[in-house]
Amino acid sequence: MYQPPAFKETREDVMLDAINEHPLATLVSHSDDGIVANHLPMIVEQRDGKLFLNAHLARANNLIDVCPDGQEALAIFQGPAHYISASLYPSKKIDGKVVPTYNYVVVHARGILRYKHDLRWKLGHLNALTDNMEEGRAEPWAVSDAPADFLARQLKGIYGLELEVTDLLGKWKVSQNRKDADKHAVADGLETEATASAPAMASLVRPAN
Amino acid sequence: MYQPPAFKETREDVMLDAINEHPLATLVSHSDDGIVANHLPMIVEQRDGKLFLNAHLARANNLIDVCPDGQEALAIFQGPAHYISASLYPSKKIDGKVVPTYNYVVVHARGILRYKHDLRWKLGHLNALTDNMEEGRAEPWAVSDAPADFLARQLKGIYGLELEVTDLLGKWKVSQNRKDADKHAVADGLETEATASAPAMASLVRPAN
Repeated sequence: MYQPPAFKETREDVMLDAINEHPLATLVSHSDDGIVANHLPMIVEQRDGKLFLNAHLARANNLIDVCPDGQEALAIFQGPAHYISASLYPSKKIDGKVVPTYNYVVVHARGILRYKHDLRWKLGHLNALTDNMEEGRAEPWAVSDAPADFLARQLKGIYGLELEVTDLLGKWKVSQNRKDADKHAVADGLETEATASAPAMASLVRPAN
Repeated sequence: MYQPPAFKETREDVMLDAINEHPLATLVSHSDDGIVANHLPMIVEQRDGKLFLNAHLARANNLIDVCPDGQEALAIFQGPAHYISASLYPSKKIDGKVVPTYNYVVVHARGILRYKHDLRWKLGHLNALTDNMEEGRAEPWAVSDAPADFLARQLKGIYGLELEVTDLLGKWKVSQNRKDADKHAVADGLETEATASAPAMASLVRPAN
């Protein structure tokens, strides 16, 4: 990923928070037939000083056949993203020397793929993922809400996956390369937009002072 | 991508509309050093009965060095995505045989990468991309708003890229495998959520009848 210094995020806690908030990974790997990409929620596990991202797939998903255990994969997590019109910049009125851009937040977690078939691993993973996703809900659903025989069949229908993360990159492209006056004007402009990600992007762009 | 029949979207116009609405692509390719992924807005071009996705990159982006012209690449576009709690399903109350899931909309455009250095191609592309992005804005910015010498320098600082699309896949995972009562309840539940993508996902899940 092209990563100019202004947009580089290196704080692991900030990147892991973004993963927790936007857990749907685009998991990309490479097979003999070319690039393979799947979409699945992942959950962070920190164990023995290492970082893992855990997930599960339907048994019918052929990832396990085309990308062998131990292969490299890249999990991409995307946060807020929004077009930034050049007409928002007050500096446009000075000399017109502005261009539009696209702001976005992404985390790239590169690592080694390993498949998991152990029932206890799968159940532990489903509990951790579900508890994380249900956190803060008025009526949280728990894996133990499902009847035992139904759950046993569900567990047979999936396989687990862990990505041992060897490299974590964050790119926060949120107007850091603009002057404060432009940042405030971009945030103001975004706050008037009806698009889904505009408020979150406005908060990311707005300077603290 | 694992694509069960229930979630398959095959209508090209629906997929191209989704690309226009969510133009920030995750462009994935493969280099000698492994998977390469970049994020950039792309615009659809239909020419001579073929489909192209066009974009531009900063000259400092080394994609052109690590992924040679003519190589396969995959552009992934992501629409609304939202966790679906199993506690939303009325069928939970009958026998408890429900599990949560993650809904999402994605388009995978696979094709052949070609780089573009011609100034007229780059200018034409910037005009098309900008006009598309600025459409409907109160004060649309146009490329011609920028001073000519400034624009000339900007054009030197980028290179173009076209992806000749050979395969277009759509996955709309929006609760089609649930009964209508569950779909309505999921849509109702999403409409009470404060998250950014909940309203769009509610519209996708809600049955027409």
